[in-house]
Amino acid sequence: MATTLPPSEYRSRLAAVRDRLTETDADAAVWFGATSIEYVSGFDHIQTERPVVLAVTNDRCSITVPRLEVERVTSNPRIDAVYDYFDYPGGAPIETAVTMLRDLDADSVVADSDGAPATMGYDGPELSEFLEVDTQHWVDRMRWAKSAAEVDLIRESARWANLGHRYLTEYTEPGAHPATVSQRASMDASRAMLDTLGERYVARVRGDGPVSAGFISGQQTALPHGHTANRRLTEGDVLITGATANVDGYFSELERTMFVGEPTDEQIHYFELMLEAQSIAIDALGPGVTVASVDQAVWNYFEEQGVADLAQHHVGHNIGLGAHEPPYIDRGWDEESEMEPGHVYTIEPGLYTETAGYRHSDTVAITDDGTEQLTYFPRELDDNVIRFDV
Amino acid sequence: MATTLPPSEYRSRLAAVRDRLTETDADAAVWFGATSIEYVSGFDHIQTERPVVLAVTNDRCSITVPRLEVERVTSNPRIDAVYDYFDYPGGAPIETAVTMLRDLDADSVVADSDGAPATMGYDGPELSEFLEVDTQHWVDRMRWAKSAAEVDLIRESARWANLGHRYLTEYTEPGAHPATVSQRASMDASRAMLDTLGERYVARVRGDGPVSAGFISGQQTALPHGHTANRRLTEGDVLITGATANVDGYFSELERTMFVGEPTDEQIHYFELMLEAQSIAIDALGPGVTVASVDQAVWNYFEEQGVADLAQHHVGHNIGLGAHEPPYIDRGWDEESEMEPGHVYTIEPGLYTETAGYRHSDTVAITDDGTEQLTYFPRELDDNVIRFDV
Repeated sequence: MATTLPPSEYRSRLAAVRDRLTETDADAAVWFGATSIEYVSGFDHIQTERPVVLAVTNDRCSITVPRLEVERVTSNPRIDAVYDYFDYPGGAPIETAVTMLRDLDADSVVADSDGAPATMGYDGPELSEFLEVDTQHWVDRMRWAKSAAEVDLIRESARWANLGHRYLTEYTEPGAHPATVSQRASMDASRAMLDTLGERYVARVRGDGPVSAGFISGQQTALPHGHTANRRLTEGDVLITGATANVDGYFSELERTMFVGEPTDEQIHYFELMLEAQSIAIDALGPGVTVASVDQAVWNYFEEQGVADLAQHHVGHNIGLGAHEPPYIDRGWDEESEMEPGHVYTIEPGLYTETAGYRHSDTVAITDDGTEQLTYFPRELDDNVIRFDV
Repeated sequence: MATTLPPSEYRSRLAAVRDRLTETDADAAVWFGATSIEYVSGFDHIQTERPVVLAVTNDRCSITVPRLEVERVTSNPRIDAVYDYFDYPGGAPIETAVTMLRDLDADSVVADSDGAPATMGYDGPELSEFLEVDTQHWVDRMRWAKSAAEVDLIRESARWANLGHRYLTEYTEPGAHPATVSQRASMDASRAMLDTLGERYVARVRGDGPVSAGFISGQQTALPHGHTANRRLTEGDVLITGATANVDGYFSELERTMFVGEPTDEQIHYFELMLEAQSIAIDALGPGVTVASVDQAVWNYFEEQGVADLAQHHVGHNIGLGAHEPPYIDRGWDEESEMEPGHVYTIEPGLYTETAGYRHSDTVAITDDGTEQLTYFPRELDDNVIRFDV
């Protein structure tokens, strides 16, 4: 049961970063972005107005954090030295980071940005006011291909997403409130996950559970980014669901188009078109396949069927530590760029009429010789109609 | 019952932005940041890899959105023209925005950044490749002082946060799981809010409810950014709670230090020191008071009491559309900068021992002649001890 990354994972990431560093003239690689810092060091934090700065040299790894993160980072076996400033803005985070870099004998660095991002009103100096700074986006690119250990966590996420989705289906009935069905499914699946994993569970949320399951309903489904309206379910409603679980920072994505009671002929028509489009995309995936071609295959199908005007977005994205990550399955993606083992794609072509939307989303990993579908809730119409004895 | 901003609010914001624009040589003001776009136009969206670009001239307001946001923005009465691109990266968002700006006869602009932020792997051209671009941060600064209508929404948020917090207290008992107590309180308070507000409720969440209430417990409270551990409550646990509600995008913040069963003498000692520090800060607030002096007053108290080494962060921040906003109550904040009517501060000095943390947070608005405390859950020890018949 994989619920956290093994130490070897961080050793290989640090080694890869150091390999890149030796190809430059810089003395240290530096990161300000929270996700990149987590990826390299395993120290996770929320990006706020308080900068965190990670520095890696050929033989050292140091970090600058606000005082309130010190206890969360000192136990990290990969970090050799911790520098802290009290708070922002009084604590001078960048100046503290410069001291850290001087102690590493780093006069020139390659950084993911020239200073900390302007999150929550942060407004501080550029790093290049103090040191020679070139830019690198190594981690962003390294994250494209997941290791087997990362895919294991996404697979585990899909398991608990599926349970949350099962509860969603169970609690859905005419008259039920979408918010309450969603929150109850999240609560019950979270508890099942926590009780099952026990001490293997890595706490990553705050005042909440690790599973998130929910849906939008009725007219809101016509909007790809619709909201959960304050309106009870009625027979005839279309639902677009979504479920995921946080497994040591990694996510999967499971979405289904469902019907409260028997769907109309029109609803079945669009559901089947969407399902076929998703099947076309899933079947097209594989190592060596160009990313853009998968979007094009779906687009060709929509055009053949005369419904291209009902499409509002491309086929999918990658997923992992981020909810949306490149590469994007988009016809405009670099036409030479190919899918590689370890890419983990969401496959979610959608059709949107004036009254409802139709979109499944599944999470599919590219393997050495094909694909592995990580989410597994049934996709067919019959499994997605919620029937009642009236 | 205030649950959304009146149209006059957006008229005055647009007027203020246009006043600033006339002071420049630029033809249009431009925003790429989601919160700023919402502030100026009332169109809310999630910042993703798909850029949204708002442009305001002396007499026009145009927007560029991905295809999937078109239906959510066309009904907006403040937006005169909607330009869309299909998706990222194929759809060429920046080029679409440049066409929009050309149609507005804008050859030079003042923008909140020189191109869209690198969110979720977005990587596109700078706007200055096409047009003359200067930088402005007008909205960030305008957001410091809230209008009466904005404070109304934060006050409404505090009401539902309080209900969520009441449920947290109700569901807490030895043996209960912190995640389940948190999720159940959020679920029940969300439903009460939805049923009470009815059609006045503005949907802003997706597969979730508008109220979020929860806590961290035991050893995790020693970390200001601790997590909800997978460990059932036992008598003697310290809790640090948090509750808020989303009211048309605005938030309040309510946090309490609570005890599961009777606290020890040591726990009472630190609780009372924290409570007095919070009272000192609340009493110090007011129009014309320098922001930094409030943090200094708490620091002086902690030093007098010999506990300054147990403080890990400053006294508080502003809150509104963002969970953390400037000005920050920090001794390092610009020493001339004064509190003004409409500032809405969280007041949350904390003390952290090796085994537990102690922090309340209340949301307090600065008024013309004093303050208004928006959160109102009782602060005293006796109201924050959860007792059981054993």
